[in-house]
Amino acid sequence: MSVPVESIFLDRDSGRTLQQQLQKAISDAILAGRFVPGERMPSTRNLARHLGVARITVALAYTELVANDYLTARGRSGYYVSPSAPRLPSFEPAVQDSAEGPDWSRAIANSCSAPLAVYRPPDWRSYRFPFIYGQCDPKLFDHGNWRQCALQALGRTDIESLTTDYYERDDPVLVEFILRKILPRRGIVARPEQILLTMGAQNALWTAAQILLSSDRKAAMENPCYPGLRDILLKTRCDLVPVDVDGQGLPPEALPQGVDVVFTTASDQCPTNVTMPLARRKALLERAAREGFVIVEDDYEFEMSFLDAPSPALKSLDQTGRVIHVGSFSKSLFPGLRLGYIVAAEPFIRHARALRGTVLRHPPGHIQRTVAYFLSLGHFETQIARMNRRYRKRRAIMEQALQEQELEIVNRSALGGSSFWMRAPEGVDTSELARRLREEQVLIEPGEAFFSPEQGERRHFRLAYSSISSSRIPEGIERLARALRAAEVKRS
Amino acid sequence: MSVPVESIFLDRDSGRTLQQQLQKAISDAILAGRFVPGERMPSTRNLARHLGVARITVALAYTELVANDYLTARGRSGYYVSPSAPRLPSFEPAVQDSAEGPDWSRAIANSCSAPLAVYRPPDWRSYRFPFIYGQCDPKLFDHGNWRQCALQALGRTDIESLTTDYYERDDPVLVEFILRKILPRRGIVARPEQILLTMGAQNALWTAAQILLSSDRKAAMENPCYPGLRDILLKTRCDLVPVDVDGQGLPPEALPQGVDVVFTTASDQCPTNVTMPLARRKALLERAAREGFVIVEDDYEFEMSFLDAPSPALKSLDQTGRVIHVGSFSKSLFPGLRLGYIVAAEPFIRHARALRGTVLRHPPGHIQRTVAYFLSLGHFETQIARMNRRYRKRRAIMEQALQEQELEIVNRSALGGSSFWMRAPEGVDTSELARRLREEQVLIEPGEAFFSPEQGERRHFRLAYSSISSSRIPEGIERLARALRAAEVKRS
Repeated sequence: MSVPVESIFLDRDSGRTLQQQLQKAISDAILAGRFVPGERMPSTRNLARHLGVARITVALAYTELVANDYLTARGRSGYYVSPSAPRLPSFEPAVQDSAEGPDWSRAIANSCSAPLAVYRPPDWRSYRFPFIYGQCDPKLFDHGNWRQCALQALGRTDIESLTTDYYERDDPVLVEFILRKILPRRGIVARPEQILLTMGAQNALWTAAQILLSSDRKAAMENPCYPGLRDILLKTRCDLVPVDVDGQGLPPEALPQGVDVVFTTASDQCPTNVTMPLARRKALLERAAREGFVIVEDDYEFEMSFLDAPSPALKSLDQTGRVIHVGSFSKSLFPGLRLGYIVAAEPFIRHARALRGTVLRHPPGHIQRTVAYFLSLGHFETQIARMNRRYRKRRAIMEQALQEQELEIVNRSALGGSSFWMRAPEGVDTSELARRLREEQVLIEPGEAFFSPEQGERRHFRLAYSSISSSRIPEGIERLARALRAAEVKRS
Repeated sequence: MSVPVESIFLDRDSGRTLQQQLQKAISDAILAGRFVPGERMPSTRNLARHLGVARITVALAYTELVANDYLTARGRSGYYVSPSAPRLPSFEPAVQDSAEGPDWSRAIANSCSAPLAVYRPPDWRSYRFPFIYGQCDPKLFDHGNWRQCALQALGRTDIESLTTDYYERDDPVLVEFILRKILPRRGIVARPEQILLTMGAQNALWTAAQILLSSDRKAAMENPCYPGLRDILLKTRCDLVPVDVDGQGLPPEALPQGVDVVFTTASDQCPTNVTMPLARRKALLERAAREGFVIVEDDYEFEMSFLDAPSPALKSLDQTGRVIHVGSFSKSLFPGLRLGYIVAAEPFIRHARALRGTVLRHPPGHIQRTVAYFLSLGHFETQIARMNRRYRKRRAIMEQALQEQELEIVNRSALGGSSFWMRAPEGVDTSELARRLREEQVLIEPGEAFFSPEQGERRHFRLAYSSISSSRIPEGIERLARALRAAEVKRS
């Protein structure tokens, strides 16, 4: 028996190389049992001619398939499907999800639903004017050096850090570089035992909330605030008090009595961009010491400080270990990395580490080691410097465009940041506005999801410049202004 | 001002290339402010001579540092520290963790402690006879092809899958390959909406427990069982009933009345290696349908079936969507990957996906895409075939050695697996035995952690052959037998 050339098809739309397409077509057919052990494969010459590819491509694919024991070579007589080629076992598949299935509304003890989040179409990159926040701009990301570092972390010498089960531990190399290169930028000195790596800031905030909150505890959060945090805190079933922020961030005197944990974005309030002044930070820490509460500081964007030096983290003023500091690589590297950290007092870190061990063990070793190399070779600082230069330019263009169109900026970050916090004229519903703008290729972030839901606050919105190129900004703002004017006319 | 050559040191023990050592030394010094903007760097010739390295190494390091804006080149006059070189901000560091710190015993609402686990020294790879379970054997891992796939997933065309925030979604390419290449091996047919990717099996089991259990629910688990699962279930505060397994695994008739969720390792009971026969599987599913409970199936090691075809998963017999199937790449690829999946009815997957979004968002995109390539190019099947060949050989040697030493095997997996479940002579404490054997360079896994703690069961132990080479097995077993005899003599 021979395998006919006609039974081998390439999938040219797959984005793979010709050689890979060919390997895959043959290995798939063998796995599925369509080509059986002992069958003779077409000669490289015939198959190459039939598929219209170079003969060397077929020869290389065959060689690789021999190495992987899909094929065997028998000298001059050619290639055969290997007698010990891998096969998929075949079973009669079961039908799933019939009408007699379980009553899930009863079976589910803890119902989880997706939180109200800032809407962002999955294909946002295809929009012409994406004023969206927190995503990676491939033009600013140092892809070449990242790839080099990842490759190094994939090398023979690092195979243990790649493959091993760390259990409750972290990569000591990354911990060392966070201690030496990241935390000093925030004025924080810490020991390795005071750091826990997490799957991004979201996971860090969730961990802190799990450890510190239960139904008999009281927590305070900023209003407006990061919607992901509200979702986390609501799920703890604690007594949750939203505290309105003002032009200096969270007012310590407005915190409720008897609070156990206060969540704050002191250095760059999310989403209003306000930096909490030193006097207020000290007042907050003093009240925490007096009343015995703990503060969780989400320091999510300090790297984007290009107008002024970043103010030291709240944690750097914390003499007594009362602040739990959360950092992330999502803004400085990219959010798909899912890597962040907690810096806190040792007793807290011990509990958080045990919880992480139960929930997911540890962030993948390869990712930890890649970031460690990226930090150790100085690429991280260079990348941030490049992002800051570009953001500074975009911000200036954006500010001018907003001024020309007479749009109201509520707050601009004194440090720089990557967004403006905006207010539409009275009566404009920015969730509706955002929907209409999508048809105009413009993406803005309506403010609704940031506020406590019962407020129904729909006048604010966020305009970010982290994912839009400078040349697109003026037209995007013009379209936004036109839509705002139309919304006003409609109202009046 | 010039930078003196004497101020530049290489860290030759760092495992980096000379060029990387040099880049790092210089970028570190600039970041720390030891070399200041405008200072002239030593000439490549002088620095190379001083450090005893090739001049091209210095030239390449300088070029890279120029590209990253640490240095500038001024034609023939040489290299200078760049005026816009990155700098670390300098703050006065705060002292942490003083005596006036918070009362953590009060501040912590949900105390978490590390579970009782099988003890394994972190440096287990340095032991000569590591009979330990579930770790990657670098000799069997297809490191070359893994590296190729990772590299491809790091390429320009995949930059979105690398960097993007997927939120609640998964990589559709990986989901497709799990549907097409993994689940058919278990007799399971599923749709993409019935799969959720997780951070390994641990995270999958935790997710299922969170969704299905609370303090007013009853769960049954096997005894003995995987200690990580007991830890997860205890933390839900549910009514937890351990059910003793027998020579056919979990007996359905022994399940308590009114149970809501049953956790089982039907295909290869952990740690006893027993495969549940078909009749018992059907009885279990029938009782589940009759009484309305849900089954969580941890199918953690089906790939290691080299003696007999793997029995189809319990999920493949499930006509009504009552089984929640958990799989993992930890055994077939490596545990440090932290990637697994849940296959279940859509309503369950929706809740699990929302919970994952709150807890950690999603497993990193790069890891998902790398596994997708490894699967799509047929490397996965080849790797499993290679592991199975090697495990078969090791197992035969091990079985013979155990026989020669007259040690008691309680259970050997009918399929193959990667370990034996052993019993020491009466009165021997295997936790104590394991400690003594460590001094002899032998690592075994005492059984204590697998049993309900109140039993104090210390006579069993697990002997795995997934991380020990064939040539070491006989001497390792000999040392084990000697230690067992010594323990018996001591007792009598």
